[in-house]
Amino acid sequence: MAHSGVSASQLRDHSKALIFEIAEMRDAAEEGYSNDRCSINLPFDKKIAKEASLLAKRHKGVDALVVVGIGGSNLGTIAVQEAVLGKLHNQAGVGPKVFYSDTVDTYAMKDLLRILAGLRKAGKTVVVNGVSKSGGTTETTANFEILTEFLRKTDRRADEHIVVTSDEGSPFWKLAEKKGYHRLAIPKKVGGRYSVMSAVGQYPLRAIGVDVDQLLKGAADMRKACLGGDIGKNPAAQRAALLHHHYLHGKNIADMFYFCPDLESVGRWYRQLMGESIGKEWDLRHKMRVQCGMTPTVSIGSTDLHSMAQLYLGGPVDKFTTFVTLDGKRSAGAGGVSVPRDKEYEALVPHIQGRKLSELMDAIYQGISIAYSKNERPYCHVGLHGKDEYQIGALLQMHMMEMMYLGRLLGVNPFDQPNVEAYKVETKRILAGK
Amino acid sequence: MAHSGVSASQLRDHSKALIFEIAEMRDAAEEGYSNDRCSINLPFDKKIAKEASLLAKRHKGVDALVVVGIGGSNLGTIAVQEAVLGKLHNQAGVGPKVFYSDTVDTYAMKDLLRILAGLRKAGKTVVVNGVSKSGGTTETTANFEILTEFLRKTDRRADEHIVVTSDEGSPFWKLAEKKGYHRLAIPKKVGGRYSVMSAVGQYPLRAIGVDVDQLLKGAADMRKACLGGDIGKNPAAQRAALLHHHYLHGKNIADMFYFCPDLESVGRWYRQLMGESIGKEWDLRHKMRVQCGMTPTVSIGSTDLHSMAQLYLGGPVDKFTTFVTLDGKRSAGAGGVSVPRDKEYEALVPHIQGRKLSELMDAIYQGISIAYSKNERPYCHVGLHGKDEYQIGALLQMHMMEMMYLGRLLGVNPFDQPNVEAYKVETKRILAGK
Repeated sequence: MAHSGVSASQLRDHSKALIFEIAEMRDAAEEGYSNDRCSINLPFDKKIAKEASLLAKRHKGVDALVVVGIGGSNLGTIAVQEAVLGKLHNQAGVGPKVFYSDTVDTYAMKDLLRILAGLRKAGKTVVVNGVSKSGGTTETTANFEILTEFLRKTDRRADEHIVVTSDEGSPFWKLAEKKGYHRLAIPKKVGGRYSVMSAVGQYPLRAIGVDVDQLLKGAADMRKACLGGDIGKNPAAQRAALLHHHYLHGKNIADMFYFCPDLESVGRWYRQLMGESIGKEWDLRHKMRVQCGMTPTVSIGSTDLHSMAQLYLGGPVDKFTTFVTLDGKRSAGAGGVSVPRDKEYEALVPHIQGRKLSELMDAIYQGISIAYSKNERPYCHVGLHGKDEYQIGALLQMHMMEMMYLGRLLGVNPFDQPNVEAYKVETKRILAGK
Repeated sequence: MAHSGVSASQLRDHSKALIFEIAEMRDAAEEGYSNDRCSINLPFDKKIAKEASLLAKRHKGVDALVVVGIGGSNLGTIAVQEAVLGKLHNQAGVGPKVFYSDTVDTYAMKDLLRILAGLRKAGKTVVVNGVSKSGGTTETTANFEILTEFLRKTDRRADEHIVVTSDEGSPFWKLAEKKGYHRLAIPKKVGGRYSVMSAVGQYPLRAIGVDVDQLLKGAADMRKACLGGDIGKNPAAQRAALLHHHYLHGKNIADMFYFCPDLESVGRWYRQLMGESIGKEWDLRHKMRVQCGMTPTVSIGSTDLHSMAQLYLGGPVDKFTTFVTLDGKRSAGAGGVSVPRDKEYEALVPHIQGRKLSELMDAIYQGISIAYSKNERPYCHVGLHGKDEYQIGALLQMHMMEMMYLGRLLGVNPFDQPNVEAYKVETKRILAGK
């Protein structure tokens, strides 16, 4: 733990403060969806899994899925999809394509409509899944209207190919009922950034062929570990303690550094999770103005070593870094890719002829971690045994519980996002022409 | 300028310090490639334009291009390609596809090889462009070997379809000569992060149909503006002064906030530009340990308002934000996309039926900028008249000169990156088995 910059006794001190939160978390594990922490129960919810699974089966064989949602309504889905199926999934031609429509961008919408028109013309089936927890998100409503209008103009069975995921009884939910669209409910107390294991993530991921049952199993097993009272064996509590310590010692940036490009969107999902959970103007009781928060950043190894390493090693010591690497299976023989053996390249870079790409990546990771230690840049390491559903489910579950623990340590509410209203009020006023 | 948090007199103070740098920059504009600042002369270089253009014409009609490079060797190309052609370019089916191979990731390489095999099987032509300034980059060498081996196994005319971009005389350059590949030279004094207007960016961008002449024209016009002595009319100097002021006042994060998803990779390019240029352990004369730097972050509007706005508005006041928006043409009638008119959606979000997506985006931007002002979060605004080649060329040129000015104000060298060696040494030692 030397590289983490936190001693065992410091970690013990932080762990004391977590005793109460771990107890509350264990209570929440027994309370269904009544507690703020209730998202930890999603991996065990048979009803949600069954509903999402049945609808996904009904849509088996569709050629493309468009997820219309923003923030908590699509970040988890993208994270899991890209991690498991890869960033190049749509172009690799295996299984249904998936598209995301989030912001109200003219260019992005035109490009998407052009692609979808091509698919429809070729007789391919397209499903649109609108996701909005509140059921009143400006961007999602606008894009959903445009995309469902497109579908209704080109598909006689359009209604069969439209799915709405929202809080039961929300305006979106009611509209879907009226229009005869499929509906999937999100438990009310589950906040957007904690909703990936609900129908929000489950339906689209199942529809494109991700093994969601393994995702849930990874999450369930991780939940158990993260309810443990011994902080040394509780990954979420341990990470919360590390982050807390470094926040108190002037690190206002939490860099998530993934040594695998397909994990980049896990980082984007984490950005929201940390940004909204602990980026707070007021303390838990709304009495003290704390302006709390660490800014989460995402780096990709080794790509960003060629852009950010200079700053990370030489610049201000204002970051706590989490290196996430793939080990085990990754270096295994099956399915690896090796550099050809060509002596003429020895003059360019020695010692890489005939070696596996994963060996090179490991050596680069070792190199940067040694450089971080030598330059006294604190970091911790999360080693995954691959990027399959089970591993990713466990990773996401750890981070969600980590953020609940970190909120407790910082004395802020990790479940609300009151400041977001500030700009929405202005935008609504402008749109109303007032 | 109230929202920028800097008064006119403070800006004047900073501008005094820039008099000398502007003078040196003007000298550099007359000195070819002998000066560190020489990248500002690339937009005027007829020889580079001609060579890149001839080779691109020779490769006219190819179906796919793979750019093998990392850091400064691909970030500028990606930035321009995605801005001008869009992130969904490959899937939209217009013009040659483009792929990027940067880090040594087994999964990414397997996916790419599968896609390329499909293209070759269908009789499509694939060109591989290896880009490495030093000619000894580990990742680029490994990936280039793998991809050219693939090409040589599947394409009888492989050598005709391989291009190497490197410093003249580098190990990579010599290898290309030996193997009979096409070669394009990078002027020695042009550093990777300033090389987008050289053959590094010019060849691949021309090959996939980007109007590089307009890109260069935008850059050339912007250079003129950024050599001006009146800081109030010199965009690069003005931005440097703003960034410097906020750095001195405790802002260690520079957030680039683009209200257009296709500009995200301009932000990634900017990350390297800022990270490597001002992220410095030592001052210019290597006498004082300064650990200088701002951490550049990239946000996308309105997407990231649904993940980061809570932190940005409520969290620590540790950021200086640059909002980049598209105005003018963007809101114009031609080619816009509107929300259909359906009264049933009024209950979800009022006042958006029948309105253009660009109107909604504008309202959201106005909303967040008002909220930033009210919450005393300092920002500045860069308004583009679209995202065509001319606009993007001007934007990139402004940022490159801004970073040279900022280096001067901070007293660091914006042209080197000495700390990067720290991890490379360790990696090489590990690969050598020592």
